[in-house]
Amino acid sequence: MYERFWQQMGDITTIVISGWQSMSYFSDVKNLCWFLEPEFAKQIIRLHKIVGNAVTDNYYIVVGTGSTQLFQAALYALSPPNASEPMSVVSAAPFYSSYPSVTDFLKSGLYKWAGDANNFNKDGPYIELVTSPNNPDGSIRQPVVNRSGENLVHDFAYYWPQYTPISSPADHDLMLFTVSKATGHAGMRLGWALVKDKEVAKKMTSFIELNTIGVSKDSQQRAAKILQVISDSYEPVGNPKQSGSFFHFSHSMMEERWKALRSAAKQSGLFSLPEFPSSFCNFLGQAFGSQPAFAWLKCEGGIEDCGNFLKKHKILARNGKHFGASPEYVRVSMLDRDESFNLFTKRLSSLHLSQSKDHEEESP
Amino acid sequence: MYERFWQQMGDITTIVISGWQSMSYFSDVKNLCWFLEPEFAKQIIRLHKIVGNAVTDNYYIVVGTGSTQLFQAALYALSPPNASEPMSVVSAAPFYSSYPSVTDFLKSGLYKWAGDANNFNKDGPYIELVTSPNNPDGSIRQPVVNRSGENLVHDFAYYWPQYTPISSPADHDLMLFTVSKATGHAGMRLGWALVKDKEVAKKMTSFIELNTIGVSKDSQQRAAKILQVISDSYEPVGNPKQSGSFFHFSHSMMEERWKALRSAAKQSGLFSLPEFPSSFCNFLGQAFGSQPAFAWLKCEGGIEDCGNFLKKHKILARNGKHFGASPEYVRVSMLDRDESFNLFTKRLSSLHLSQSKDHEEESP
Repeated sequence: MYERFWQQMGDITTIVISGWQSMSYFSDVKNLCWFLEPEFAKQIIRLHKIVGNAVTDNYYIVVGTGSTQLFQAALYALSPPNASEPMSVVSAAPFYSSYPSVTDFLKSGLYKWAGDANNFNKDGPYIELVTSPNNPDGSIRQPVVNRSGENLVHDFAYYWPQYTPISSPADHDLMLFTVSKATGHAGMRLGWALVKDKEVAKKMTSFIELNTIGVSKDSQQRAAKILQVISDSYEPVGNPKQSGSFFHFSHSMMEERWKALRSAAKQSGLFSLPEFPSSFCNFLGQAFGSQPAFAWLKCEGGIEDCGNFLKKHKILARNGKHFGASPEYVRVSMLDRDESFNLFTKRLSSLHLSQSKDHEEESP
Repeated sequence: MYERFWQQMGDITTIVISGWQSMSYFSDVKNLCWFLEPEFAKQIIRLHKIVGNAVTDNYYIVVGTGSTQLFQAALYALSPPNASEPMSVVSAAPFYSSYPSVTDFLKSGLYKWAGDANNFNKDGPYIELVTSPNNPDGSIRQPVVNRSGENLVHDFAYYWPQYTPISSPADHDLMLFTVSKATGHAGMRLGWALVKDKEVAKKMTSFIELNTIGVSKDSQQRAAKILQVISDSYEPVGNPKQSGSFFHFSHSMMEERWKALRSAAKQSGLFSLPEFPSSFCNFLGQAFGSQPAFAWLKCEGGIEDCGNFLKKHKILARNGKHFGASPEYVRVSMLDRDESFNLFTKRLSSLHLSQSKDHEEESP
């Protein structure tokens, strides 16, 4: 979806890398995270200050191959090395469908997926993942377990002004961000963590050292350029170019798409969508309700398996059960290319009660 | 060390990436390894055919964030998901010092480091890592366990003509390569695996999907360009430019450095180095003995801790015990920048028996 914006920007985000550049493993031997490119670090801090979505003073930055790698680095860093049993990892349902599989795929003795945080009642230390705005349902989240032994990981992949009002700079112990959701550059495989505790930041750095001996320098250099161009367009404050700038563009796109989706759902009559209260965004200087990167769509009218029903009508969506929720729900991406998104809303709006009854008769 | 070569090559290896390029997660949805850039895959195959160091026909290519990630992907793919105990992972000592730590850092229930392959005598399936030429000692290796239940991973990071004669194209089940040792671009964090079995290649792809959702596209594009420029200089066969080409340049550099190192060791009289038999290299069309990327240096004259002794004389080297070997040995990199390498040989040549005695007196 953001591709069109970056095409319009032309050459100012283009980077050139010569064959003899950035050959070494090391980026900055004096930094705790020795494979973090200094220019990328600088642009991360600058962008957070401009957008106002996170505090960076007195935080360590750890770069990762996407926030997925940083999530695993966080589990590794927060789990004691010699505990008698693995640390429990929980998140309130509906949760990001990759959390259970990424936590458990190596059958680690350090940590283990323990399901929906709402049902968690084991004593002792645990890790709670707080994704806000949440994937898949876009809700604004707080920790739900709130017991002693708490270790929190805040996944802020979607805490950017195109998706949700920026109410205040987040200042939690361990916060994850990713380039793919911030600017749309998923192919770079880049994320960063803001970490308060030095020892935790060190252990996360060790994880990435053992897992991949650092992170692509080429992508870090390219990301630094992209973040720099975004920040440049918002400085000095009140820069007349800012109305055509990235967050203004992407905010408008998301607004349009959510209008189109709500209208299609209404026209069909078979679906409901979450409602989001309006609140003030300090960055955009206006109030609005969240317009998440995913739609958490519920099939009404007695359709039990929403994913299956949509599939029969050529709409691909991820079944709610992957997110620890009911199959009456599906998650649909709101960030697809225009053609695909338009086709999706067109097909959705044409579905009516009669089709849902056909469906019920077919499935025993 | 290779930086100088790439500087001399000037602009022909330069790449330009626009802000709107390679934004998606996907590189080639029709490929089993869907995050592998097609141009990178093409240049990998082309280079192997030109150098003659590996068979690529009927192999799947899996790209990874360095060969370290691919090594873990291989362990994951070769270990059954529901075994009653973890799969044993072994390698003949001296072995690459990262193998034990990378295998065990997450305390996986799927696989577990089981030490020196020469002492392995457990029944049942196991994974043996065969690094050839070997890190740290440069020896040419074959599997040593040779029992039923064998799963082999061949680490061919150093099977390139600057390090060792290319005797024949390797055609094992699972072979790992890395850009950092082939061309010197460690900062790209890129490696590739050649995999015979489709199911193994699929499981390795799954590992990388779960671990990092793919691999930096920017680095893949840059690597494709670097490999292409190397291959171009060797085609058509007998291209007059080839004498100034990458493998000729790097082979000469390594030859010079090994001469300088052997001369320094001789002058000192305190050190011995492995000897490598001369054999014919089909690619360079000449016979030579291996000139490895690391020197496996042994302290003679009763010095028990070689790493400690060298440290006192301002030479940094990795202690042999990290490689499952005696502390009489150290590993020294042969790929440092000219200044550092020259300083190293100068310091080494000036060490004599009297200093070794001082050392012995100091350490109880």
